[in-house]
Amino acid sequence: MLYFLSDYTEGCHEKLLEALAESNRVSQPGYGEDRWCRSAAEKIRALCGEDADVYFLNGGTQANRVVIASLLRGYEAVIAAETGHIAVHEAGAIEGTGHKVVTLPSREGKLRAGELESCMASFFADATHEHMPEPALVYLSQPTELGTLYSKKELSEISAVCRRRGLKLFLDGARLGYGLMSPACDMSIRDVAELCDVFYIGGTKVGALCGEAVVFPRHGAPKGFFSTVKQHGALLAKGRLLGVQFDALFTDGLYWDISRRAVELAMALKAAFAEKGYPLFADSPTNQQFVILTAAQKERLEKDVAFSVWQPLDDGRFAVRFVTSWATRPEDIQALKALL
Amino acid sequence: MLYFLSDYTEGCHEKLLEALAESNRVSQPGYGEDRWCRSAAEKIRALCGEDADVYFLNGGTQANRVVIASLLRGYEAVIAAETGHIAVHEAGAIEGTGHKVVTLPSREGKLRAGELESCMASFFADATHEHMPEPALVYLSQPTELGTLYSKKELSEISAVCRRRGLKLFLDGARLGYGLMSPACDMSIRDVAELCDVFYIGGTKVGALCGEAVVFPRHGAPKGFFSTVKQHGALLAKGRLLGVQFDALFTDGLYWDISRRAVELAMALKAAFAEKGYPLFADSPTNQQFVILTAAQKERLEKDVAFSVWQPLDDGRFAVRFVTSWATRPEDIQALKALL
Amino acid sequence: MLYFLSDYTEGCHEKLLEALAESNRVSQPGYGEDRWCRSAAEKIRALCGEDADVYFLNGGTQANRVVIASLLRGYEAVIAAETGHIAVHEAGAIEGTGHKVVTLPSREGKLRAGELESCMASFFADATHEHMPEPALVYLSQPTELGTLYSKKELSEISAVCRRRGLKLFLDGARLGYGLMSPACDMSIRDVAELCDVFYIGGTKVGALCGEAVVFPRHGAPKGFFSTVKQHGALLAKGRLLGVQFDALFTDGLYWDISRRAVELAMALKAAFAEKGYPLFADSPTNQQFVILTAAQKERLEKDVAFSVWQPLDDGRFAVRFVTSWATRPEDIQALKALL
Amino acid sequence: MLYFLSDYTEGCHEKLLEALAESNRVSQPGYGEDRWCRSAAEKIRALCGEDADVYFLNGGTQANRVVIASLLRGYEAVIAAETGHIAVHEAGAIEGTGHKVVTLPSREGKLRAGELESCMASFFADATHEHMPEPALVYLSQPTELGTLYSKKELSEISAVCRRRGLKLFLDGARLGYGLMSPACDMSIRDVAELCDVFYIGGTKVGALCGEAVVFPRHGAPKGFFSTVKQHGALLAKGRLLGVQFDALFTDGLYWDISRRAVELAMALKAAFAEKGYPLFADSPTNQQFVILTAAQKERLEKDVAFSVWQPLDDGRFAVRFVTSWATRPEDIQALKALL
Repeated sequence: MLYFLSDYTEGCHEKLLEALAESNRVSQPGYGEDRWCRSAAEKIRALCGEDADVYFLNGGTQANRVVIASLLRGYEAVIAAETGHIAVHEAGAIEGTGHKVVTLPSREGKLRAGELESCMASFFADATHEHMPEPALVYLSQPTELGTLYSKKELSEISAVCRRRGLKLFLDGARLGYGLMSPACDMSIRDVAELCDVFYIGGTKVGALCGEAVVFPRHGAPKGFFSTVKQHGALLAKGRLLGVQFDALFTDGLYWDISRRAVELAMALKAAFAEKGYPLFADSPTNQQFVILTAAQKERLEKDVAFSVWQPLDDGRFAVRFVTSWATRPEDIQALKALL
Repeated sequence: MLYFLSDYTEGCHEKLLEALAESNRVSQPGYGEDRWCRSAAEKIRALCGEDADVYFLNGGTQANRVVIASLLRGYEAVIAAETGHIAVHEAGAIEGTGHKVVTLPSREGKLRAGELESCMASFFADATHEHMPEPALVYLSQPTELGTLYSKKELSEISAVCRRRGLKLFLDGARLGYGLMSPACDMSIRDVAELCDVFYIGGTKVGALCGEAVVFPRHGAPKGFFSTVKQHGALLAKGRLLGVQFDALFTDGLYWDISRRAVELAMALKAAFAEKGYPLFADSPTNQQFVILTAAQKERLEKDVAFSVWQPLDDGRFAVRFVTSWATRPEDIQALKALL
Repeated sequence: MLYFLSDYTEGCHEKLLEALAESNRVSQPGYGEDRWCRSAAEKIRALCGEDADVYFLNGGTQANRVVIASLLRGYEAVIAAETGHIAVHEAGAIEGTGHKVVTLPSREGKLRAGELESCMASFFADATHEHMPEPALVYLSQPTELGTLYSKKELSEISAVCRRRGLKLFLDGARLGYGLMSPACDMSIRDVAELCDVFYIGGTKVGALCGEAVVFPRHGAPKGFFSTVKQHGALLAKGRLLGVQFDALFTDGLYWDISRRAVELAMALKAAFAEKGYPLFADSPTNQQFVILTAAQKERLEKDVAFSVWQPLDDGRFAVRFVTSWATRPEDIQALKALL
Repeated sequence: MLYFLSDYTEGCHEKLLEALAESNRVSQPGYGEDRWCRSAAEKIRALCGEDADVYFLNGGTQANRVVIASLLRGYEAVIAAETGHIAVHEAGAIEGTGHKVVTLPSREGKLRAGELESCMASFFADATHEHMPEPALVYLSQPTELGTLYSKKELSEISAVCRRRGLKLFLDGARLGYGLMSPACDMSIRDVAELCDVFYIGGTKVGALCGEAVVFPRHGAPKGFFSTVKQHGALLAKGRLLGVQFDALFTDGLYWDISRRAVELAMALKAAFAEKGYPLFADSPTNQQFVILTAAQKERLEKDVAFSVWQPLDDGRFAVRFVTSWATRPEDIQALKALL
């Protein structure tokens, strides 16, 4: 069986396993006070700015929930694209902390600065706006849930609206590496740090067993963030599990190598589909590829290949997703191509 | 430096590392639908009853929070000993889900059935009780935060009060192995399953990198528990991380071996203190040992040994804690003894 | 100034004032245990079924919040029309209790049974639905926020979908009297009780100073509802304030008389607009009337008449709302007509 | 039957009824934007400082819940006396908003500055305090739940600890009038405003049908407090109900007259018990009186008098409560005395 189901269907990059093995017997305090968490945070600060606050959390929904809850007052709301992960696939995690997710139309998975500005303008133009949840934070994903990318110009425009309107800007980077290493990307992680108030560098989907590094540039972490993490049940006793992995990921550019390689394989996969005449559902320059299959094609492929159905289309065909990761091998692409 | 600071200051038992390495490249679906989660759950059901619902969560506070939130109505409260972990060291995790933690006096870390019954009797005798948070769940730890153990008789009596009063009984087993493998323990894990409505088998503190196996005997998991886990940000994309570890822990009795060995070393450590004339702060038959040090003794030992101060005593001395784990070696005990 | 701003811009029907004055010195226990609450509940049960549980709350948002929170598990969601009050104008009250409001398209303020069924079918057809907030309750308003009415057939069809799908059906009756007394209405309050799991009979907007009577037919109140009310800060010490008013409203059919009279005046108001050639924005058979004004008409009328702007239209005109109530006099309609 | 059950067992002072009747037909906007709310707020500002923010809420638990939720971050806790209303009789309203209530010993219903300081010092001395809910607000009642009063010196000392420690100070004044009008009281409402960050002037228990005026001195209301009130379901559509009543209460000193008179009657009642040799349970200088009855005395009195049992005593006797209000008449005291 060829596996393109997701980027979380294998363990972790072998270098992380090695780092876990090597550090295994070294005694260090718990709760993120170990030497690896410190070292990993320093390496991330070297990339994002020396005044960045860095915390390690376990997974994406957890990071979204804890960060958003830590930044909003009770009645405040989050703005997200209607396809945003927090709006769709987190079982109401944000609402569970008391906040409404206000959705804007998704343009290939992306928000647009103009629509964001209009949304805020209409909000304040409404005489009854104090009876409505006030947007106070914008959530977006880079790359998006559809694998697409914000350009630096697009993100800068959104950031400008946020700053003018007093909105926090939060970038979900569960797959950040695949975005920044895409040939289509024109921004650096430093740009992300400059344009956003908080973001995370995804580990789980980029070669780690688990873990997301939450970064608040410019000492932006809210008071008591450590306690907020603890209260949400998101603090690991063996915080080293995250520290060791992120320290390895940010040693000798491993994080970027993993990302770049997976995107290259994704481009080969995309080319294979194109060559065989399969239409795209979305034109993604990152590690998630969305193509359209007929029911017959889908049924045939499912015998040998694991992939996921994104959504049934009205004409009976299916938008499906193929994902590459650190574990994908070039020969997997060739084998897939042979089956198309 | 000799390390007795806690049972979460090293990585994991080497057999778990091996299992992680071995399974690393095997592709499996995420979110706990992998083969190891299934296998581990089966092994746990073999111990606890075939009708047990088993879920794997990341850590103790997370398990406490998610389980309690899933079982209570909005206005309902939890009863815990005043020394209970949820009452003291979880940054308000339970209150964060909307529920009051009502505390009863701690008797060496334990609740007593009689006091529980009195508490419930007084509650319902109060004509205004509908204006008060109604206790609906009892939380206790086995072993307790002071390393002490409920006897089977004590737990049975508490369980009987709970059943009579319609209270759910939840046992925090973050260190369950150390409890059940203590020579002082007269109950089995099957007894725990019979007496409680839900409990967890701690992994993080018993040789795993992370992970607690939540067990609801008699198909007792509340409707939608999976979604509750997801909403709390407690669902790992790579659920296999927990499955692989628990599968290894419950293969060939590794979990019990780790626990038994650590308790034996703890007994040796206790004997060493006794031999040298140090008084005990609590008489623990498990892997956490509590002794009393003078300020001078404390200062001297701290140079070579890592341990934690539990609480300053009124007479200027200190109750301190020494903890053993899978990573403790017999020679560490000898070396410590030489320093006493 | 002619006042058509809303149905909550005056005090209360004089008979309620009289009842308050008459009962003022009578000593009775607090928290809803007074004789008038009991009497009012009996009168409501006589209308809705002897097995109805009846509670008195203060206002609409409060009732929506308390009722919904009392009926849902943590991860469960509410379905509402996109124009539903809870989706728009309650400052995130429902999300504040942890629940997502899932919106469906509004058809003149109404949900449709077919769309509800499709929504549920799609939800369960999605293989990842356990990662999404599960709808468990349907919220609708009768009359709607646009003054329109569900026919008995429409409500029956929605009720049938709810029962088949295991959804609770909650009817917001903040203006229920104006709905049931409309000549266009083909259902009785007994029908409402039969078709819904919970609803409320609005007092605040139908002649009372404050108060909504929440009705759970068929002993449907969830366990501990009184405590839930208390926990939400929604229990009045002087519960009699609500009891006295509802007792008066349901004596000699006053509630229905107030409602019928206001609807008659609203129909006269609507006829006046029609006669003068003003287009309708929505065709409402109840006490809220929505017409379209040009900017010039709006500006002119605002000098002498208080009404509210519902929304600006794309062509520069305005949808505006005129509301009648117990306090509206026939001569007000004549005076308004003279100004059109 | 003589009624001393509580101060919320009758309607409202007749002057408030008159004001409601007089204003009844005057049309004014809803949601607290009416002329009476404005006028009442101005009168309260004249007493408490021109820079005070004033809001009108419905009841005590509601005010406690909304105010506390508006001022705390997620993981922060409230400190209260163990007898404090929020700690005992609000069905977990504060926990329902996510916050722990940390209790300190009650000294006749009061907190002590020294114990508060010790509590904070211990908190920060604990190396693990970031794992604990951080106290951020102090709640106290004036008069207390036992009718006792903080002296100006006591309140000043508590206020000083709060300011040094960065704690907000919140005074529950559900019976504030009875406190300030007690001959034993040495502080003014202006003192309260100077020493506290927020407090409320109770209406429900001091002659109104409902209503508490929340005062944030020095423009201390948190951003978006109006929306917070709305989100909690605590905003009345007919906000005038509260405005009219508070405007009447603060016209010609009615609030103080009601309070002074009830305290005088309470002192007469206390003297009657003393004269007849009944022991006091607490020595209250305000409108709640606590005496001790034998079972026989209690049984006998209950035939003719309504009062409440505060708590059974260990020796078989009962602490009981008698309360006076605006509705108590001098002849009621005489009649009671005759029965003792």
